[in-house]
Amino acid sequence: MTDFSVSHVVLKPGAWSSQRHWHIGEDEFLVMISGEAVLVDETGEHVLRAGECAAFPKNDRNGHHLQNRSDTDCAFVVVGAGEELGGEYSDIDMCFTAAGTYVRKDGTPYAAKRAR
Amino acid sequence: MTDFSVSHVVLKPGAWSSQRHWHIGEDEFLVMISGEAVLVDETGEHVLRAGECAAFPKNDRNGHHLQNRSDTDCAFVVVGAGEELGGEYSDIDMCFTAAGTYVRKDGTPYAAKRAR
Repeated sequence: MTDFSVSHVVLKPGAWSSQRHWHIGEDEFLVMISGEAVLVDETGEHVLRAGECAAFPKNDRNGHHLQNRSDTDCAFVVVGAGEELGGEYSDIDMCFTAAGTYVRKDGTPYAAKRAR
Repeated sequence: MTDFSVSHVVLKPGAWSSQRHWHIGEDEFLVMISGEAVLVDETGEHVLRAGECAAFPKNDRNGHHLQNRSDTDCAFVVVGAGEELGGEYSDIDMCFTAAGTYVRKDGTPYAAKRAR
């Protein structure tokens, strides 16, 4: 398949899906399939349980991530598509770029290359 | 969101998701979220339960559909994206076209307009 990507993600107890972030050019959609996680965004905290979904439209600066605060694994499927234009981490001084690099919010580079 | 579409579908006991079909230009991906359904395609029958997924790449002539043969509702999420170029129903003399019409496999039109 080439029209969108799909990832199956398992979060261990205590794990985060990523730093809280948003994408400039990519829509994301998530379906919880087992266990539960806490979706954290600018509007607060929202428990997601199996069968529940969340949508993250591109260029919506409401950064999001999932935290597994339970004592068992949780699993979800996340779909993404669009233009890989980079985006921003909400809670730390870091952006990810279209070129696959990390920069500070003032544009100065970090040394690390982005894994993708 | 504009990069892909997402549908939440509930199938009543006995219901089919559609006639068995495939798309010329659109990838589809499905996540079962509750209950169970039987995925029927050219390779046979496959029971899908909550948390299980299936991918239907565009232009793969292996037509598929879901049948709820259980005695309770089942629910799934289906993601689609790509070019709406039409496609074919595997088991009946019908194709759906990019123009939103139905035609026989020899190209002669049916009167009905496609709902989308």
